[in-house]
Amino acid sequence: MSNLGDHQLGIYLSGMFDGKTPDITTDLAALEDRAREVLSPQAMGYIVPSAGHGETARANRAAFDRWRIVPRMLRGVAAQRDHSTTVLGTTMPAPVLIAPVGVQTLAHPDGELATARAAAAVGVPYIHSTAAAHTFEQVAEANGDGQRWYQLYWPTDQDVCLSFLRRARAAGFTTLVLTLDTTLLGWRPADLDRGFLPFLHDVGLANYLSDPAFQEKAGGSPTMHWAQMFPHPGLSWDDLPFLRDHWDGPIVLKGIVSVEDARLAVRHGMDGIVVSNHGGRQVDGAVAALDALGPIAEAVGSDLTVLFDSGVRTGADVVKALALGARAVLLGRPFLYGLALGGQQGVEHVLRCLLGELDITVALSGHSSCGELSRASLQAQ
Amino acid sequence: MSNLGDHQLGIYLSGMFDGKTPDITTDLAALEDRAREVLSPQAMGYIVPSAGHGETARANRAAFDRWRIVPRMLRGVAAQRDHSTTVLGTTMPAPVLIAPVGVQTLAHPDGELATARAAAAVGVPYIHSTAAAHTFEQVAEANGDGQRWYQLYWPTDQDVCLSFLRRARAAGFTTLVLTLDTTLLGWRPADLDRGFLPFLHDVGLANYLSDPAFQEKAGGSPTMHWAQMFPHPGLSWDDLPFLRDHWDGPIVLKGIVSVEDARLAVRHGMDGIVVSNHGGRQVDGAVAALDALGPIAEAVGSDLTVLFDSGVRTGADVVKALALGARAVLLGRPFLYGLALGGQQGVEHVLRCLLGELDITVALSGHSSCGELSRASLQAQ
Amino acid sequence: MSNLGDHQLGIYLSGMFDGKTPDITTDLAALEDRAREVLSPQAMGYIVPSAGHGETARANRAAFDRWRIVPRMLRGVAAQRDHSTTVLGTTMPAPVLIAPVGVQTLAHPDGELATARAAAAVGVPYIHSTAAAHTFEQVAEANGDGQRWYQLYWPTDQDVCLSFLRRARAAGFTTLVLTLDTTLLGWRPADLDRGFLPFLHDVGLANYLSDPAFQEKAGGSPTMHWAQMFPHPGLSWDDLPFLRDHWDGPIVLKGIVSVEDARLAVRHGMDGIVVSNHGGRQVDGAVAALDALGPIAEAVGSDLTVLFDSGVRTGADVVKALALGARAVLLGRPFLYGLALGGQQGVEHVLRCLLGELDITVALSGHSSCGELSRASLQAQ
Amino acid sequence: MSNLGDHQLGIYLSGMFDGKTPDITTDLAALEDRAREVLSPQAMGYIVPSAGHGETARANRAAFDRWRIVPRMLRGVAAQRDHSTTVLGTTMPAPVLIAPVGVQTLAHPDGELATARAAAAVGVPYIHSTAAAHTFEQVAEANGDGQRWYQLYWPTDQDVCLSFLRRARAAGFTTLVLTLDTTLLGWRPADLDRGFLPFLHDVGLANYLSDPAFQEKAGGSPTMHWAQMFPHPGLSWDDLPFLRDHWDGPIVLKGIVSVEDARLAVRHGMDGIVVSNHGGRQVDGAVAALDALGPIAEAVGSDLTVLFDSGVRTGADVVKALALGARAVLLGRPFLYGLALGGQQGVEHVLRCLLGELDITVALSGHSSCGELSRASLQAQ
Repeated sequence: MSNLGDHQLGIYLSGMFDGKTPDITTDLAALEDRAREVLSPQAMGYIVPSAGHGETARANRAAFDRWRIVPRMLRGVAAQRDHSTTVLGTTMPAPVLIAPVGVQTLAHPDGELATARAAAAVGVPYIHSTAAAHTFEQVAEANGDGQRWYQLYWPTDQDVCLSFLRRARAAGFTTLVLTLDTTLLGWRPADLDRGFLPFLHDVGLANYLSDPAFQEKAGGSPTMHWAQMFPHPGLSWDDLPFLRDHWDGPIVLKGIVSVEDARLAVRHGMDGIVVSNHGGRQVDGAVAALDALGPIAEAVGSDLTVLFDSGVRTGADVVKALALGARAVLLGRPFLYGLALGGQQGVEHVLRCLLGELDITVALSGHSSCGELSRASLQAQ
Repeated sequence: MSNLGDHQLGIYLSGMFDGKTPDITTDLAALEDRAREVLSPQAMGYIVPSAGHGETARANRAAFDRWRIVPRMLRGVAAQRDHSTTVLGTTMPAPVLIAPVGVQTLAHPDGELATARAAAAVGVPYIHSTAAAHTFEQVAEANGDGQRWYQLYWPTDQDVCLSFLRRARAAGFTTLVLTLDTTLLGWRPADLDRGFLPFLHDVGLANYLSDPAFQEKAGGSPTMHWAQMFPHPGLSWDDLPFLRDHWDGPIVLKGIVSVEDARLAVRHGMDGIVVSNHGGRQVDGAVAALDALGPIAEAVGSDLTVLFDSGVRTGADVVKALALGARAVLLGRPFLYGLALGGQQGVEHVLRCLLGELDITVALSGHSSCGELSRASLQAQ
Repeated sequence: MSNLGDHQLGIYLSGMFDGKTPDITTDLAALEDRAREVLSPQAMGYIVPSAGHGETARANRAAFDRWRIVPRMLRGVAAQRDHSTTVLGTTMPAPVLIAPVGVQTLAHPDGELATARAAAAVGVPYIHSTAAAHTFEQVAEANGDGQRWYQLYWPTDQDVCLSFLRRARAAGFTTLVLTLDTTLLGWRPADLDRGFLPFLHDVGLANYLSDPAFQEKAGGSPTMHWAQMFPHPGLSWDDLPFLRDHWDGPIVLKGIVSVEDARLAVRHGMDGIVVSNHGGRQVDGAVAALDALGPIAEAVGSDLTVLFDSGVRTGADVVKALALGARAVLLGRPFLYGLALGGQQGVEHVLRCLLGELDITVALSGHSSCGELSRASLQAQ
Repeated sequence: MSNLGDHQLGIYLSGMFDGKTPDITTDLAALEDRAREVLSPQAMGYIVPSAGHGETARANRAAFDRWRIVPRMLRGVAAQRDHSTTVLGTTMPAPVLIAPVGVQTLAHPDGELATARAAAAVGVPYIHSTAAAHTFEQVAEANGDGQRWYQLYWPTDQDVCLSFLRRARAAGFTTLVLTLDTTLLGWRPADLDRGFLPFLHDVGLANYLSDPAFQEKAGGSPTMHWAQMFPHPGLSWDDLPFLRDHWDGPIVLKGIVSVEDARLAVRHGMDGIVVSNHGGRQVDGAVAALDALGPIAEAVGSDLTVLFDSGVRTGADVVKALALGARAVLLGRPFLYGLALGGQQGVEHVLRCLLGELDITVALSGHSSCGELSRASLQAQ
């Protein structure tokens, strides 16, 4: 079996042969409801809700509904579809990456290790969050021969920043993803109402606590030191050359939702951007990420690599984002729900289902690879 | 009583005389909820849900709400309305056909036989699915003098394909409906979560298992042979002449939702098309079928016969599809719900109610026949 | 107290003095839910639901939400507002009439008698339905000095038609309202599912059964004779001169929802029209009545009297209909819910609340009378 | 800690150190649901519902959803944001004021005193309602060094009006806010159904009962005298010079929702206006206040001070109103819910959370102060 979509038949056959149905739903948009049943209140509070009253997260989903796929018929689609692609030098079986998500141990004890292993098993690139509950080095070992990128929350302490970059490079992370939209933490009532911020409980500080530069500065109160060096609202375009000086791989800016900022990214020589509003976790009432994608891709899609993140739940969602101009898509909460529901296997399940649904949807839409998708594949509602 | 709408008075009178109310609701859009109460989980899973998270099925319904009928008054509507029509040589009391639906035994033990009998009793043409749970020959016998068409899932095995065409013709099926949108099975979580695909359990393979050409190839593992010959993503416009060579009746392409493909159908000399997204069962997030109908009918409605399918529930829905340019409408799930709720009688109930509501709605809109409906009968919301 | 809005203070004071709160809600849009608690299933089935799946009734309500009132400030509104007006020679305290509704005994044993008495008490004109459960003569006596119009379902039997006109005139009904949209009964699942049509049970036939012309024709089976003479789809513009010949008061056509038909009404010399879709009880999926009102009033509002009906629940709704060009508004279901909840007093309660809310809304919008309302009072959503 | 947003870290740290979570939710849009659990039925009826069927209140909220914030990245936001501003001579830490709300003792026994104290503690200006349950003098004492304005319901008795103005001035209220949209009380079913109007029970009459001019006129029936002097529909632009003659501070007109009235306010030399529909409590079906804001600010925003009120729940809402042209925003129901849930501390909680969320949202949007917000910060949905 070599089509990603063959996973579908595999599920049917496994149900047929062992009389058991899959443990986790294949309805990827329903994963959240399933995960609610197993997550602890604190984990739920941190993972599922968004900033404020959740308007941005709802807007993210609603934006997908305003675009409809227009399948074309009788186009002689290849019996063997090939969705594999290379993004900024990284190969992948289809244009999908694991989004950077912190403190994954909230979802499952194995946390990022399980995710990194699943990513490697399926061939999907893994992006390591600065706020991970496991260190660069641990995750790299779990990820093995997998492809991995590193997401940076740029601390105000440059020594720590430089140390992070050095360790990431040494551990085989090839592309740097700088998150722009979280120079301060968003207003997140679910966490606030529980008075729970993982980092204040030493959770999600693995990269920091294991860092010599951080240890030197933090003294006996690492949590407080983190709280002082994390906020970085002053970050500006003028800081980017520093990154370029200390990172020899591609650099991608994550969190852009305006054409103006996308153009500035081009002007500042960035390799890529991720159109994203952090899954609605930062600014309540913000523009839907998918609404931002089309105009941005049109304006700069030929000048740098445009990736997409925020609101993707299903294979159909991936199709829409690609058709609107994304070069590849980052998958966030769904894999985390898979992690919560089944550890490494759960993540693999979600990835294989997503890729399977993606392959089938692309083929049924009349294409032999994701690369054939274009704005003409969609119709505005 | 000779108006289709007289069925209404019949219901009232029957309630009056025997003190009993109808067994099945006359609110056709509410049939699904009733059917949920009687269908087995597996049947429910296969029949009711759609691809992915059901966005296409919801879009199908929402599209109907965006068109509103504008009834005209005092137009001297005929006391005896006549909605009878001839479509590709097939006569019918109103422009409504039974859509091809497979494995109807999931809904009721009598399956396609009950449906074919009901269709004949009401005079509505029956379209036989390749995936039926009864054979061409059994259905033809049940359908008797009724009008019947044959829907083809084109297998990759040409011998089986030819055998199917021969048997259909021999059994009195007059028009060939080639389904384009199901060269692979859509991603259907309700089935996947149960690990249940009827065909892997020898259900819905009646036409195959009874076929000499298939038997010859399949050997001892018919299910696996089906799984190998069913997927046919490579199907292309270039294959159509083969069909024409081996079928001497009209040929209709089912599953078209773009003006471009409709134009290609004209260019390839097809007799008709069915604007349809398979009731939302194939591509999640796809364009609503009704949204596709208007532009397609406008572009090619005079060059071939444009039929409509996907989302029709009520007589008002039929009116809207006809007014937007459909020559006739295929009715799917509603008759299946009727089948589930009452076998042959249930299907007849649904058909008579639909035709009754259709007649009354057309008459109240100021017309003496469906043929008078036009774009002017509607207003966009 | 002479402002209609003073009813508000009256309610507060009555609650203050007797410690009791009103028996029926003053939230007029919530009356339906209250009525559901007291109506019998059969009455509920006939009164509350609409044709088909209720799409037209929902569209009627949604249309109101798309228009927003723009209150103007500091306009020196009169301390004593005067909303009284004269419509086709009939005076009323505000441009509101009781819509013709049949078989009101389903809602309350006193039926039309209670409604006619309440109408007279409040000064609101009462429109008598041909399908009433009380006769012209009984209602006229109950209505006393009140203003009353007569609504005609034109039977195919001209003798009965003429007898109805004569009796109505003799009983003091001044204006004739010819209903156009119910030449056949709509498809009403709630009734069909119960096999209940009032008229087949001799309910709602009071005018017929008491009629000499009808008695002569009906013989021993009045119900069947009604069923034969009620359907009148052949009614056309050419029939209107007959009405004019036999009715010497104003004639109003009820059920018009297109500009074309409104223009035809002008051309045929009608005195008025009621823009209405029969509260959604006839054609499911039809255009919202309020959506039809604006264009119609603009096209013909100066050539004949444009009334409005369908979907009005609150004083704000009346304001919107008047601002869109209606000369006056017919109130249907709300008064019937009042009747169900409290007989004559219930109807009075609903009327006084509606007029009170209307007065207050008009005054707060910056006007001293309903007559000052115009398209400029509204903003499209 | 000197950023308003530092309140966020304070909540996390307090939860960390004392193991207790905040008593009241930080999800400001969810406060209403919490308040429902503690408010008496009468208080609920007066505070939460709106006029009629609540359409205006819903429209107010829906209008916010149609505008989306477009955060900008890498703009070097100040580590210390400064949202402080001066409006009509009144300083405040951010452009937010406490809206005038009457009878606050319904929410909490301490009523306006708690609110005035909380306002002073946080530095937010307090606007005193004529319908308060505590007098000018009591509130001024509670408010101490705080900033305070006075909202006038202009009674028809000029002596009382003049006495109110004198007392307000003497008690340190600096700006006069004249409410235009409540010359009559709106139709409020929740109150009417309970037959409860606070003022008829001597609640909300503190300013009146303590007034020498009022006492002189009222004799032994103050409630009835209030009922006679409160309605003032005749108020007009010509009355404004009288106010100017008797008030030497700025004058603001509250309740304007049309560009025409905003222009008239300019022409009549007003210092400011509050775009507001009284939180939907006066005219049901009225235009959403936020829909009115943009056009008004564009038309007159440079000619007088444009404030905004109606529907604000969260920091994101404040951002949207400011970006659409409001100079500052009035906060109503949310602080009242805080009052109900926790007295003075509850009000402080709501204010600090709102300002905190506001600061964080502004900073994450790429700005160092609210003053940088503009129409370019938003995108229409």
